[in-house]
Amino acid sequence: MALLPGPVERLAEEFARFPGIGPKTAQRMAFQACRWPEPALQALSGTIRLMAEAIGNCPICFFISDRGELCSICRQQGRQEELICVVEDPSDVLAIERTGEFRGLYHVLGAALSPLDGIGPSEIHADELVARVSGGTVEEVILATDSDVEGEATAGYLVRRLEGTPPKVTRLAHGLPVGGELAYADDRTVARAFSGRQLL
Amino acid sequence: MALLPGPVERLAEEFARFPGIGPKTAQRMAFQACRWPEPALQALSGTIRLMAEAIGNCPICFFISDRGELCSICRQQGRQEELICVVEDPSDVLAIERTGEFRGLYHVLGAALSPLDGIGPSEIHADELVARVSGGTVEEVILATDSDVEGEATAGYLVRRLEGTPPKVTRLAHGLPVGGELAYADDRTVARAFSGRQLL
Repeated sequence: MALLPGPVERLAEEFARFPGIGPKTAQRMAFQACRWPEPALQALSGTIRLMAEAIGNCPICFFISDRGELCSICRQQGRQEELICVVEDPSDVLAIERTGEFRGLYHVLGAALSPLDGIGPSEIHADELVARVSGGTVEEVILATDSDVEGEATAGYLVRRLEGTPPKVTRLAHGLPVGGELAYADDRTVARAFSGRQLL
Repeated sequence: MALLPGPVERLAEEFARFPGIGPKTAQRMAFQACRWPEPALQALSGTIRLMAEAIGNCPICFFISDRGELCSICRQQGRQEELICVVEDPSDVLAIERTGEFRGLYHVLGAALSPLDGIGPSEIHADELVARVSGGTVEEVILATDSDVEGEATAGYLVRRLEGTPPKVTRLAHGLPVGGELAYADDRTVARAFSGRQLL
């Protein structure tokens, strides 16, 4: 016999679908929601309905946007249209924008290649990237995929796909984190820092 | 300038209100929600609206119930009405029900006394407990609040409040966890296991 009312059980199941939220955390969240005042719950429900109805991806760069519209970055005046930074996820865009260092545009793949998870070339907006740079206004494509196995494989795949298109293709530098101590860096990071050493 | 559409930012803020969900996890969840298909988001929104409109507390024991109705346990036939187990949270009820050992009724305080958090006697349904046991049908009140400082203080407070009412008042046993090794138990648990030792 179910001890809890249906919506409470269901909410716990739905929260547990978010990656990183285990069944225990999901149930704690559902219990917590039982104690929220009704207006707070109605607001949360409304926000999620709005997500369902009004949020989509930018038709140019696939960053999160109001549905059917350009994203905030593609709409911004004065960005360098000749520079495109390719990232895996929208959160990467936020991380790069926080630095204030990059004034070009983005291309959000939405994932990295991962055959075991069923993510192949057609899932990462690679065709759209090739079409986008073939026009001739783009001068440089910066590959900023993660430096794990999937990210490196994705970068390698994109290098091959972009061969013969006008822009030069670069990759973000790997090396020691700024402010970090060499002794605490992992072996592969130290090795990359050596092989990428620069003349002063 | 906001980089993300309003509802995405707002959803991250709303998720971050759940205890145990930090701002980073909340933002990851909001990004994830952007990739959910529209029907899944509409379902989640609907579940939360239903929580707002149809979920409440049992008027007898304050466990979660359909609004204005008795909870599933108070409605069950054949529970021992002369036994009341007092717990802090609805999740405690689930934990005890999973054991199948207890067939009485519950009283869910909703919190433990915690003056620093502004939780005083009027926040823990103590008056309702006293009223409930004064009738005379209840023979035993089992205090099953946590064994942390707040839980012990709450148990002590309820003992005083229940003085002079008919039922006897008991407290769950503390001691070594079943299957645990003595060497790994914390000092206070070992001490409680000694002071509560039983004749074989």
